[in-house]
Amino acid sequence: MTHLEQLMKGLDGICDCAIINDTVNRRYFTGMKSSDGYLVVFKDAAYLIIDFRYIEKARQTAKGCEVILQDKKYSQINELIVKHNASVAAVDTQTCTVDQFSAFKNALKADVTDSNALSKLIRDIRCVKSQDEIDNMISAQRIAEKGLEHILDIVRPGMTEREVRLELDNYMLRNGAEELSFDTIALSGSNTSLPHGVPSDKKIQAGEFVLLDFGAVVNGYHSDMTRTFCIGEPSEKMRRVYDIVLKAQLAALDAVKAGMTGKALDSVARDIITAEGFGKNFGHSLGHGVGMEIHEMPYASPNTDDILPENSVVTVEPGIYLEGEFGVRIEDFVVVKKDGCENMTKAEKKLIIV
Amino acid sequence: MTHLEQLMKGLDGICDCAIINDTVNRRYFTGMKSSDGYLVVFKDAAYLIIDFRYIEKARQTAKGCEVILQDKKYSQINELIVKHNASVAAVDTQTCTVDQFSAFKNALKADVTDSNALSKLIRDIRCVKSQDEIDNMISAQRIAEKGLEHILDIVRPGMTEREVRLELDNYMLRNGAEELSFDTIALSGSNTSLPHGVPSDKKIQAGEFVLLDFGAVVNGYHSDMTRTFCIGEPSEKMRRVYDIVLKAQLAALDAVKAGMTGKALDSVARDIITAEGFGKNFGHSLGHGVGMEIHEMPYASPNTDDILPENSVVTVEPGIYLEGEFGVRIEDFVVVKKDGCENMTKAEKKLIIV
Repeated sequence: MTHLEQLMKGLDGICDCAIINDTVNRRYFTGMKSSDGYLVVFKDAAYLIIDFRYIEKARQTAKGCEVILQDKKYSQINELIVKHNASVAAVDTQTCTVDQFSAFKNALKADVTDSNALSKLIRDIRCVKSQDEIDNMISAQRIAEKGLEHILDIVRPGMTEREVRLELDNYMLRNGAEELSFDTIALSGSNTSLPHGVPSDKKIQAGEFVLLDFGAVVNGYHSDMTRTFCIGEPSEKMRRVYDIVLKAQLAALDAVKAGMTGKALDSVARDIITAEGFGKNFGHSLGHGVGMEIHEMPYASPNTDDILPENSVVTVEPGIYLEGEFGVRIEDFVVVKKDGCENMTKAEKKLIIV
Repeated sequence: MTHLEQLMKGLDGICDCAIINDTVNRRYFTGMKSSDGYLVVFKDAAYLIIDFRYIEKARQTAKGCEVILQDKKYSQINELIVKHNASVAAVDTQTCTVDQFSAFKNALKADVTDSNALSKLIRDIRCVKSQDEIDNMISAQRIAEKGLEHILDIVRPGMTEREVRLELDNYMLRNGAEELSFDTIALSGSNTSLPHGVPSDKKIQAGEFVLLDFGAVVNGYHSDMTRTFCIGEPSEKMRRVYDIVLKAQLAALDAVKAGMTGKALDSVARDIITAEGFGKNFGHSLGHGVGMEIHEMPYASPNTDDILPENSVVTVEPGIYLEGEFGVRIEDFVVVKKDGCENMTKAEKKLIIV
């Protein structure tokens, strides 16, 4: 069954008509990438209403739906609602804005529900990956790993964080990445204690950690990896912290299996880091789902009740951040399996010294 | 007055407490870039609640507000609501999702209004640019123009659209762009008839148009420009269509002034293209605002009542698209002035033949 067919089948009990206007969901269900448009889904038919800028491409690309040139969108949606005799319409409440929702409520000839049931259905469908989706993420990850090898070949004291970032980005884009998963994080020295720092013109110096968090996109699917390596000899403390993060990461990778909660997975790594006295220095979640978005369901966090379903994808990325000193994060991403996981990340995790 | 002070002053009559959780608005009002966080604004004080990943940077960067480490966010917002004795809270309905709105409604100790008055206030503030904002956009545009010169130096038959895109992107990023304004559009030959086409592995051939739509970002501010040039000699028809688009663009640039509607500006260009028989081949709007977002208020479109205020920024980008043959678009972006405009785009507009 295609994603769109799963959605059509799932509408029973939720609504007669689903209206999807989120960029990612539109691409996920139709294969057509655009910044605008309305996917209107009934139990037995689907339509993509899309404007002039994209119409020629949509007619070549969109799968499983009839493509309609957008004119007066609300009248066009209403015609479909009447044609399919729909009385309840639903939106994806996780992405639909309050203004857009009000506009639908005022304009449409069906009751527009604010229930989040459609939103949950979409997340459930997107959470479980097909082999095609996994293959795309593995392809993306191979590109990212070649990028890392390239950086390890050329990085040297005196290069700036920004130069490292640009080298890595450009390498991935020239070697098959359709885009970058997110703004690449390339930090060094004390900047590595900023979990989401922005690359600066700071020069990398001998004896410093370099932290790279980055990924490539293939056919809309993202990869995500973090590695921390050292330029020249690390201090005792740097080695010790690195070893603790690695121990926590390996233990969490060992623990992953379908049916467990994201919270339980998080605590496997967190308990180890806390026992070593660094609990307060691991201030973010262990991981998040990855797919057509870089952050999606399921989450592995102390604050979630998410269950990790079979064939979902999740990152495992513990870190320790010592303000003013340094930070270490090590991140792989894995496919959750019945009795374990398939690690899509193959890059070295022993402390690399260049 | 800072942007944040304008917002605080504008809350009178709208709400006692504005909650802003949109990435762009958070950065616009505080100067701090992050993927997550809550800016909570009262008439006399503002607070940025932000998580562990960003806290160190936020304490160094965020202006005009107290920075609070995010823990239990709703309790933290409620403490502030109680402290400031606020009874009505408002969200930015243009960016707040239905789910997020429901969560606020359920959790907060103030009435959460679904009025879009706060949203309108924010757009009105953002629409009118300060000299600092304009200077950033001019800096971004200079980088983009150097990128175009670089491409004109190196482009030749046999290069692919993707290669041109990567050369241009990499050039801008190495010459001061903090990021790209959007995914660069680089198309050739019959692909140029796709107004929002994606660069492919198609090789550029002699006698074809190349269309580039691209921009750079400086300090969060975007530039936006389109140029169409020819590789070798264009046909008569290509010259004729190019001249019509250029005539329409120059007429619209001549017509821009503060106080006119975006619709009136659009029609200046559209009437010329229609009179030449290509009205149905100009299927998009004439232009849009640019600032911290690549598309923002005000719009210049047949379907808008937007007024162009003094010191707003708008693109002027007519196009003609002939499916299966070729397309032409020429785009500048300008600052709207009392009696005209300041064109921030300096790149050549005569048909360039390389």
